[in-house]
Amino acid sequence: MIKVGIVGGTGYTGVELLRLLSKHPEAEVVVITSRAEAGIPVADLYTNLRGHVDLCFTEPDVATLGECDVVFFATPHGVAQNLMPALLATGTRVIDLSADFRIRDPELWARWYNQTHGCPELISQAVYGVPEYQREAIKQARLVACPGCYPTAIQLGLLPLLEQNLVDSEHLIIDAASGATGAGRQGKVDFLLTEAGDNFKAYGAGGHRHLPEIEQSLRDMQPAGSKPAQVTFVPHLLPMIRGIHATTYARALDANTLPDLQALFEERFADEPFVDVMPAGVHPQTRSVKGSNMCRISVFQPQQRDTIVVLSVIDNLTKGASGQAVQNMNIMFGLAENAGLDVVALLP
Amino acid sequence: MIKVGIVGGTGYTGVELLRLLSKHPEAEVVVITSRAEAGIPVADLYTNLRGHVDLCFTEPDVATLGECDVVFFATPHGVAQNLMPALLATGTRVIDLSADFRIRDPELWARWYNQTHGCPELISQAVYGVPEYQREAIKQARLVACPGCYPTAIQLGLLPLLEQNLVDSEHLIIDAASGATGAGRQGKVDFLLTEAGDNFKAYGAGGHRHLPEIEQSLRDMQPAGSKPAQVTFVPHLLPMIRGIHATTYARALDANTLPDLQALFEERFADEPFVDVMPAGVHPQTRSVKGSNMCRISVFQPQQRDTIVVLSVIDNLTKGASGQAVQNMNIMFGLAENAGLDVVALLP
Amino acid sequence: MIKVGIVGGTGYTGVELLRLLSKHPEAEVVVITSRAEAGIPVADLYTNLRGHVDLCFTEPDVATLGECDVVFFATPHGVAQNLMPALLATGTRVIDLSADFRIRDPELWARWYNQTHGCPELISQAVYGVPEYQREAIKQARLVACPGCYPTAIQLGLLPLLEQNLVDSEHLIIDAASGATGAGRQGKVDFLLTEAGDNFKAYGAGGHRHLPEIEQSLRDMQPAGSKPAQVTFVPHLLPMIRGIHATTYARALDANTLPDLQALFEERFADEPFVDVMPAGVHPQTRSVKGSNMCRISVFQPQQRDTIVVLSVIDNLTKGASGQAVQNMNIMFGLAENAGLDVVALLP
Amino acid sequence: MIKVGIVGGTGYTGVELLRLLSKHPEAEVVVITSRAEAGIPVADLYTNLRGHVDLCFTEPDVATLGECDVVFFATPHGVAQNLMPALLATGTRVIDLSADFRIRDPELWARWYNQTHGCPELISQAVYGVPEYQREAIKQARLVACPGCYPTAIQLGLLPLLEQNLVDSEHLIIDAASGATGAGRQGKVDFLLTEAGDNFKAYGAGGHRHLPEIEQSLRDMQPAGSKPAQVTFVPHLLPMIRGIHATTYARALDANTLPDLQALFEERFADEPFVDVMPAGVHPQTRSVKGSNMCRISVFQPQQRDTIVVLSVIDNLTKGASGQAVQNMNIMFGLAENAGLDVVALLP
Repeated sequence: MIKVGIVGGTGYTGVELLRLLSKHPEAEVVVITSRAEAGIPVADLYTNLRGHVDLCFTEPDVATLGECDVVFFATPHGVAQNLMPALLATGTRVIDLSADFRIRDPELWARWYNQTHGCPELISQAVYGVPEYQREAIKQARLVACPGCYPTAIQLGLLPLLEQNLVDSEHLIIDAASGATGAGRQGKVDFLLTEAGDNFKAYGAGGHRHLPEIEQSLRDMQPAGSKPAQVTFVPHLLPMIRGIHATTYARALDANTLPDLQALFEERFADEPFVDVMPAGVHPQTRSVKGSNMCRISVFQPQQRDTIVVLSVIDNLTKGASGQAVQNMNIMFGLAENAGLDVVALLP
Repeated sequence: MIKVGIVGGTGYTGVELLRLLSKHPEAEVVVITSRAEAGIPVADLYTNLRGHVDLCFTEPDVATLGECDVVFFATPHGVAQNLMPALLATGTRVIDLSADFRIRDPELWARWYNQTHGCPELISQAVYGVPEYQREAIKQARLVACPGCYPTAIQLGLLPLLEQNLVDSEHLIIDAASGATGAGRQGKVDFLLTEAGDNFKAYGAGGHRHLPEIEQSLRDMQPAGSKPAQVTFVPHLLPMIRGIHATTYARALDANTLPDLQALFEERFADEPFVDVMPAGVHPQTRSVKGSNMCRISVFQPQQRDTIVVLSVIDNLTKGASGQAVQNMNIMFGLAENAGLDVVALLP
Repeated sequence: MIKVGIVGGTGYTGVELLRLLSKHPEAEVVVITSRAEAGIPVADLYTNLRGHVDLCFTEPDVATLGECDVVFFATPHGVAQNLMPALLATGTRVIDLSADFRIRDPELWARWYNQTHGCPELISQAVYGVPEYQREAIKQARLVACPGCYPTAIQLGLLPLLEQNLVDSEHLIIDAASGATGAGRQGKVDFLLTEAGDNFKAYGAGGHRHLPEIEQSLRDMQPAGSKPAQVTFVPHLLPMIRGIHATTYARALDANTLPDLQALFEERFADEPFVDVMPAGVHPQTRSVKGSNMCRISVFQPQQRDTIVVLSVIDNLTKGASGQAVQNMNIMFGLAENAGLDVVALLP
Repeated sequence: MIKVGIVGGTGYTGVELLRLLSKHPEAEVVVITSRAEAGIPVADLYTNLRGHVDLCFTEPDVATLGECDVVFFATPHGVAQNLMPALLATGTRVIDLSADFRIRDPELWARWYNQTHGCPELISQAVYGVPEYQREAIKQARLVACPGCYPTAIQLGLLPLLEQNLVDSEHLIIDAASGATGAGRQGKVDFLLTEAGDNFKAYGAGGHRHLPEIEQSLRDMQPAGSKPAQVTFVPHLLPMIRGIHATTYARALDANTLPDLQALFEERFADEPFVDVMPAGVHPQTRSVKGSNMCRISVFQPQQRDTIVVLSVIDNLTKGASGQAVQNMNIMFGLAENAGLDVVALLP
């Protein structure tokens, strides 16, 4: 059994890791830390775990964490980077769900996250953890930087188009919507049921922290000679708990020579265990992936004009965070990629 | 008091008309028809109307309706067109909330609504009822075709940009989301709480009936010499009851000569009683217009690139249907434009 | 115009007072206070008020408030009692929406609210503001203590039964459920959309602060010689924003001599503008009172056994708080009781 | 592998059976029937099953079903009873999720279900499938009648009190609330998102079909000499998809000799894999059992008066239907009782 540690287990990605790992056939969580809740049984905080998880939260401690085979960071940005050098020095491998090691340029990171990066020297060692185009690098990684929730849905949707350089990459439009778990488990007025319920609104239309990550990752997909991806990204807040839906609009570079898009998408993802291309004409729904690690995708070409529409849905806590982290762990340790992740979405 | 008739009062636009008109200081509903519910008190079907509306549904009858000063059609498409010649012949004025008289080209209408238009000769008499750019024509109209809910939100958001010919009108991207009342009050499985609740999905990505109406109306706003508006329109279904949110993406024809967009929007709508331009940087929310006739709008230019983002929200049953219909009535009869509509949105 | 002041306008009862009073034909809000938000336009915080309310929040100040004809307290408990002596001394009349003056016994109050009452000498002057059985006293009151939301729904449901001493008053069972606005507008984790949404739970089963208020008020309704009301009260939290539903179970003292309950209820409330007894067999729904000051009630006698079931619904922010406060104001100042309150509930 | 057939797989209990059985280590669904959808892949109807279930719906056929080791009926009432004689004659065992074989008295069944029972001679062979007090009988059963969702939550909550004859069994009060999946997957207006969303109401206060089942089952728990259980049962409809919450009120026969209720409940359920007694003072939440087969229970004695309050929550589709059916199958076939059911509830 792989021994797993979790740093920062009180947030929603923490409890989601526990939900998945507590049933994983080849991994066992042996330590979970939280300064604020040290000493408290995890199942007191998250009663769904009663009978499944017997651990108590403990103070974070590098020595204890270092005895694990792998450590997940389920912390806000700024935490992982400070513990990372000491932790990696113990020889354990790390999967960071936070934003700390996603952006290769520490200056760019500092600008969007309003703080100096605490550990720029390790950024280059981090592998960006999207299995669908980084699988080989992930196998060897000591440090995996798991992508953000919006970036995951968006990258998977655009991957076939950008790899083939089929669209005007400088004017990508990404209209996305997320359930409120994306904002974490903090007592902010804006995310009260009474404020965020029965409501829909855009936010961050002027600039969202996921923008530089999205642009960097899309550029990584592009073949040499493509014009670097540039996106207009408007996220919206849904009156829901889980789920991300991304609607991406891209203009064909040459509408006359476009390949069959349905076939293109189906072929590209044929061997991917967690990407499902819907039949032509069917729209994916967030509920069809609730609690599962699946990303479901559709592609349309409305009125046969030159704008292509890609729809992609994920559960932001699963494929958008903790599920993808477990998928990365499976790849790193040579396990079946769907170990612990072979779950049917909860519908209805 | 203006005597009002309502045809087809059992749907959501019908009950919304009654909510508004029952408190209107200068109008009185005297007849409301429904074949299916004839003889039943309206307040038995909609218990919020108990104590406010004493009418019973009656069979539709042109003679009785013809005694009204104005008749609203709150019917599915295909109904108003058949009654219209006889009804207009009585001299009453008509406000049609359905799609029957919105599209000027009966061939185009037939293609999108899958039936031959029953009364093409009256289409040219219909005034398209968006007060914000049709106010003068509405005053004189015998027949007003109220716009659809999506088209209303979209038109108001694009009006300042298209009137000034500032954007690439051939590649407009409209990403919109609606509460489930947009689908009406019919027992369809897809709109059960258990299916549409806790879910988000696009629909009609391949082509939605509001598309020809949107394109026609946007072209009507454009000055001579503009390239005719062409839109990619993807609607989404929200797990909510009321509210439409439209996020519109338009590329500047010349980003270097763009005027101050905030000022442009504020000036354009300065005298409009039901359009509210939000302060710069503030995102409108659907809950801020729930139950009110207001449209709230914001405009952004993300990263100062050449794509402009306009956000607009309305209550689909109010400004998107029955409220706008009452606003049209007020204009037609020379009343204060906000008579019966001076309502604060229900928040929280 | 009656000049109105509001103390503590940033909470949900504050914005609800503004929604109602901004359209009141004979009252005008002239001052609204908030220490935290002083200087900020009210409509910046609550965007539904844009175009309807031009006031800014100000620091609370007895002199300014004292110039009002009436002052509403929309504050947490413990605030009104400290300002009350100075404020009443100015001659203004006061309507307190908080719990400060509801309980006649200051010891009892202290026990449930965990603090000593700051102004016990004024408690006896307070009139408990349920118009349905206190109308005459309210007319003369200098200080009205508005009832809590749960107590309002419960009292109206039990009034006909207790006045007639028809039920075992020592074993009343009250099972009630509330939308999350009942918890106020504070950033507590438990009331996040992600915690309180898609969930239902009881709370306070061991004892809720409204219990002593409920028992005191029910006893006030009972004729001499009745056994003092004693209740088991279990509130529940609904995944909704507005609405209270109370299901009350009372055993008939003598099932054989029970009067016709439907007729009893209809007669008792025949002249009440804000109590609506539903037709026999119809269940009231919270949505039928959303945004309105109405209480709708049904009474059942399942299987003709000796347990009577009363169902009552209100909007907790309207009849359960701010609407009832305005109703009390109307009574105090001799206005039409429904002035400013003649609103149709927002359905759907 | 146990070969499983499912009759009537298009409803919510059908898809829930597939979610659970598709991951069951020792069972395999080999046939699933639906007259309406015959020929259609199951995963076309329920897209969460894409990649997990490859079956198509087929016409129901006794010969094919008879080759299964066990057949589940996930049909509306009235269907199973007609197929049952022929099916049992094949030697297969049957687990009926419908109401057909729950009530021992066919006259009583006929009265509440408005039809004559089609197979009264087999009723006596049916074992009522609540493992917590019928485990031994279930092991041998050829035909298990799975309890209804409300009855399951209610029985588990009252079991310790009734077995010990501690409460006034003639005046039990049961106030319960259910998510909308309880009403099934049919296109009824009342269960539209626009009708059942953002709303709370009682229904069936005058008498609900689960009443006779509840009373029969509670009486089965009572020791000889107890007064037969009689309940007042008021169900409510929650604006949610899954979940049942039952709040049960029972008066102590002798408050002075009551045992420690917390200990009583903990001991009674100590060995039950799917009943979890919460720590004293903690209220169970529906979300803590979403998608799991667990029932969580709390017991309170408010103000130490003589009324006992029991709170119990289940997922109506899992422990309230399909999960309990699988639990029964596991018992019938000598498998680990939690095989295929060792699932963590989806929270948040």
